[in-house]
Amino acid sequence: MRAAIRLDGIGEYYFSQKLREIDELNKAGKQVINLGIGSPDMPPHPTVINTLHEEALKPNQHAYQSYKGSPVLRNAIAKWYKKWYGVALNPGTEILPLIGSKEGIMHICMTYFEEGFSVLAPNPGYPTYASAIKISGATPLFYDLKKENNYYPDFDQLEKLVKEDSESPLRGVRAIFVNYPHMPTGQLPSLKIFEQLIAFAKQHNILIVHDNPYSFILNNNPVSLLSVNGAKDVVIELNSLSKSHNMAGWRVGMLVAAKEKVDEILRFKSNMDSGMFLPIQLAAAKALELEKDWHDEVNKVYRARRQKVFDLLRLLNCVFDETQAGMFVWASIPGKYKDGYELSDKLLHDTNVFITPGGIFGSAGNNYVRVSLCCEEEKIDEAISRVREIL
Amino acid sequence: MRAAIRLDGIGEYYFSQKLREIDELNKAGKQVINLGIGSPDMPPHPTVINTLHEEALKPNQHAYQSYKGSPVLRNAIAKWYKKWYGVALNPGTEILPLIGSKEGIMHICMTYFEEGFSVLAPNPGYPTYASAIKISGATPLFYDLKKENNYYPDFDQLEKLVKEDSESPLRGVRAIFVNYPHMPTGQLPSLKIFEQLIAFAKQHNILIVHDNPYSFILNNNPVSLLSVNGAKDVVIELNSLSKSHNMAGWRVGMLVAAKEKVDEILRFKSNMDSGMFLPIQLAAAKALELEKDWHDEVNKVYRARRQKVFDLLRLLNCVFDETQAGMFVWASIPGKYKDGYELSDKLLHDTNVFITPGGIFGSAGNNYVRVSLCCEEEKIDEAISRVREIL
Repeated sequence: MRAAIRLDGIGEYYFSQKLREIDELNKAGKQVINLGIGSPDMPPHPTVINTLHEEALKPNQHAYQSYKGSPVLRNAIAKWYKKWYGVALNPGTEILPLIGSKEGIMHICMTYFEEGFSVLAPNPGYPTYASAIKISGATPLFYDLKKENNYYPDFDQLEKLVKEDSESPLRGVRAIFVNYPHMPTGQLPSLKIFEQLIAFAKQHNILIVHDNPYSFILNNNPVSLLSVNGAKDVVIELNSLSKSHNMAGWRVGMLVAAKEKVDEILRFKSNMDSGMFLPIQLAAAKALELEKDWHDEVNKVYRARRQKVFDLLRLLNCVFDETQAGMFVWASIPGKYKDGYELSDKLLHDTNVFITPGGIFGSAGNNYVRVSLCCEEEKIDEAISRVREIL
Repeated sequence: MRAAIRLDGIGEYYFSQKLREIDELNKAGKQVINLGIGSPDMPPHPTVINTLHEEALKPNQHAYQSYKGSPVLRNAIAKWYKKWYGVALNPGTEILPLIGSKEGIMHICMTYFEEGFSVLAPNPGYPTYASAIKISGATPLFYDLKKENNYYPDFDQLEKLVKEDSESPLRGVRAIFVNYPHMPTGQLPSLKIFEQLIAFAKQHNILIVHDNPYSFILNNNPVSLLSVNGAKDVVIELNSLSKSHNMAGWRVGMLVAAKEKVDEILRFKSNMDSGMFLPIQLAAAKALELEKDWHDEVNKVYRARRQKVFDLLRLLNCVFDETQAGMFVWASIPGKYKDGYELSDKLLHDTNVFITPGGIFGSAGNNYVRVSLCCEEEKIDEAISRVREIL
């Protein structure tokens, strides 16, 4: 039976395919060093794991949970947003726990977008934004993030995209996806750019979906888009414990927004799944109580690894900004390679080291590579010596 | 901002609303006995909880997991299907672990259905089938399950629905949702009806989605629709550990089907979420190894409760079949009530006992109520004495 039209052009996720290739190489005896994936390799704090166990031992924690999540987790999220971002949220109405923030992207698309509308998405950017927009029936319109503009949107271009779109009979821009600290470039937000985005969204009556999972990694000043005046009128923010608390596999994220938006999204979500396993919710609430020393400890590890990744990239004659936030280093490649794919393929072939070609994040990433910090120092050292050997 | 058209008419789930009302009553000092929800109140086997803990203690179990799930869980599912259902499945290609089987309903709808198609759904039946069909853009066509026909589909009616639909210019029936043991009626499948369904689906080139979460509850003969000859050509089966292993809150389900179907559904799912928390997958794999004594023990509790629920229903002059499977009793109401809503409301008002009106499962359930067995015997006793008092 033919799949629905909405899946036309929606392929297997790049990494899903690439990881299979790496698997094959490993099976063939190569020891591939994978510097591709941004999946934290360190465990969560022991108190998080203990809470999971203690709560799972209780006989009455195994039933279906409310679609809106446990009040304990919603309260913990509210406190966390207040403490770190200075944002006041009503835990009863403005917070929706998610099975990872990735599902939130689809929930938002399915709730607000449909055929005939278009949605702005960053180039380069997380490929799931465009896939989810397409699956909802809407059309992604890509806006460029360029180095010379600090990887911030060019508002002239945004205005032009909105204008062109409104002149077509069928369409209208319904929303813009934004993500700072930005993946893959590591660019931090500025208050000015956040204020401009909100003014732009209000002027054109469009939603801003801000994806904010990287704010605690190699960044001393976590910022929420909701901290900007008037943001709640137009912003839905996604956040996650995956990176900040080393809980990627646990699948705990959140969506925060004004009550009416949370209620609308819940109409979709409640028909799709149920609340998360209660012991996971309670363990996540514990994680959100962790203090600055936790984040400092995590960042100490990433900082040391980053120095080694810088060394690796210098060996490859790549150019990068040393102040990037997040768990990757984004680097432009030397002119002798056609694009990041060529460098990535050559490296995998010659040294069994995998780094991500920037082109998978959009055409604007073609001359870049992205190197993950989710890999032990010794392995990065080993990658460096393998590269030295072939130079 | 207006929500997408696909959510028109998609309301909050009935229970979501009703549970809030019950909450209010409890806050006002009433002690509501909730015989509404089918959420197992007993814990999983201790070995399942221990596995969760042991695996969560390991430092390397916290990263993102493959979209296809851990091979350990897929192998355990394959063994479980072989042992209990006599169905051989390739664990590498024919099994997709799910974050609960409920999400599988939406994944299937989003993968195969779209505007212009229609999908057959049972009346009475689980309301999420119709909601998910509507959200996909397709139109639910309800087929009747009547007591006089053992709550089996009437194939004359199915043929008529398919024929009418094929004569309309836009539409075609794309699939049929089937669910045996059936919720809410507790009807068991028969081999004959399963064979007829497969012949019907092949003749009209439509998919069968079989939802099979109740086969271990008050039933000594679990059956998979995939055990019928030729089923893999047309069947996608959903299954779950929620009821069979008291793991409703854990969110572990599965989709089993031919490789090509699993691959297509994965195109949607991999853009929506990631693999489940590995310690949960490994704990679920342990649960699937449990032997008959586990199920016997669980069913002993449900059987004792069911006797009490029968007593309660007799007091209310309701009529029911004593051989129902699953964790509910489905009963027709006496003629003096307009419908099940009236009886349910009266009972809640007069005795603070909540039972589910059959009408929420479709018009064919209007003169019925559904009573859950997920409630301790003492509470059912208390419900009985409250009802005695008002008679």
